[in-house]
Amino acid sequence: MSDEREIQEVMARYVRAADHRDGTAMSDIFLPEGKTEIFYNNAGTAERLGELVGAKAIGAAVTTLMKPHPPRGWSHHTTHDPIIEVKGDTATLDAHFVVFNVVGAEKPEGGWPEKAAGAQGTITPIEAGYYRPTLKKVGGRWMMALLRIYHSHDRVHLQITLRLSFQFA
Amino acid sequence: MSDEREIQEVMARYVRAADHRDGTAMSDIFLPEGKTEIFYNNAGTAERLGELVGAKAIGAAVTTLMKPHPPRGWSHHTTHDPIIEVKGDTATLDAHFVVFNVVGAEKPEGGWPEKAAGAQGTITPIEAGYYRPTLKKVGGRWMMALLRIYHSHDRVHLQITLRLSFQFA
Amino acid sequence: MSDEREIQEVMARYVRAADHRDGTAMSDIFLPEGKTEIFYNNAGTAERLGELVGAKAIGAAVTTLMKPHPPRGWSHHTTHDPIIEVKGDTATLDAHFVVFNVVGAEKPEGGWPEKAAGAQGTITPIEAGYYRPTLKKVGGRWMMALLRIYHSHDRVHLQITLRLSFQFA
Repeated sequence: MSDEREIQEVMARYVRAADHRDGTAMSDIFLPEGKTEIFYNNAGTAERLGELVGAKAIGAAVTTLMKPHPPRGWSHHTTHDPIIEVKGDTATLDAHFVVFNVVGAEKPEGGWPEKAAGAQGTITPIEAGYYRPTLKKVGGRWMMALLRIYHSHDRVHLQITLRLSFQFA
Repeated sequence: MSDEREIQEVMARYVRAADHRDGTAMSDIFLPEGKTEIFYNNAGTAERLGELVGAKAIGAAVTTLMKPHPPRGWSHHTTHDPIIEVKGDTATLDAHFVVFNVVGAEKPEGGWPEKAAGAQGTITPIEAGYYRPTLKKVGGRWMMALLRIYHSHDRVHLQITLRLSFQFA
Repeated sequence: MSDEREIQEVMARYVRAADHRDGTAMSDIFLPEGKTEIFYNNAGTAERLGELVGAKAIGAAVTTLMKPHPPRGWSHHTTHDPIIEVKGDTATLDAHFVVFNVVGAEKPEGGWPEKAAGAQGTITPIEAGYYRPTLKKVGGRWMMALLRIYHSHDRVHLQITLRLSFQFA
């Protein structure tokens, strides 16, 4: 596999770990000393919310800080149009992301009615922005060294803000 | 072209065949004995709706079971963040999908008014999930051997359910 | 990097130039004599709106004809499922596109309220269709020679229509 494909697969594993709220899978794609930095968009200015340091802390954040899906809910973190630069054992990637929120309708006790057709629920794009990671090739495998997340909206996760503030104070 | 790119192109041809309701193009990417299995998401449990067996039957389903587009309608079956594993002449792919439904507004008899701007109609994400095919390389060409479709919603196509039930009873 | 990846990166740079309203970056990916043709979908018939000729004119259109983002707005032109054919120094690409419009809510003077969570604003898919460019490799670099844009909706940009009509009359 080419370096570019391997790097795209790291991003693909990132979005699955996020959608599955799988902290172990998320930790596994970061270097032990890896970092995540989150930025919001305040009318054109990227404002740094804070950072998570270490693969373990990043994994723990996925498990404990991301809201669990409701019983009939799911999310799809999707990425698009990557620009990848590889220089030796270091690489950067720049990709759009769009997060779709899937909310299923409650199934009636007697099952879906005869006339029901189409998706029983809604799909809504709730977040968008850019993932801009730096990756390192260590032991033949590309890993996230620093993931910068730029949201196109302002202040997306207040709850995360509040909880993280204890760590970053 | 790398195996990974060829496999992505099979998926790209799949979504175009679906959007064009082109049963011939759809049959053409499956092995003669290829299968499609469709699963829905019942509150976290993947429930198997049924399967279509054979490239011909799969193509016929696209032509006869998928609802035709209205005159000003279209769809975009889009896929994202593929994870691809190639082992010799067998490969698996795992990709998110999101289906966008395009519904155009009716054009007024006298044409669009002077003030009209922007899209004359709506674009709505109506389905999402994962395509998880197994492919085989036969005669130098990657083909779909088994396509598993996992919807993130419950019971998306009741009409297909009812009609397929005759085949799968 | 493979030809296919380089060609995908040209498309990735196109969407970023569009989202940043960056005419210089847009001009830079077209051959000096490059063209853009725009088509709309009138109930199944692709109607040619007009064309822009020359990298400079295409860049100027991005800067002067595309509506600027509002202070808390942004766009994400995303592309999906490319089909790429390379023959020597000429290549074609066929990709879906979906444009997402991000509109942020106005930040209250005293900051976001304690209870605010989630995206403060909306993300709406506003355009979809196909990008079908022909590219040429010149001096070792893939460049847009002709970009055909097929919208799945009818008459998306009336303002561009009106202004372009002077050029194409």
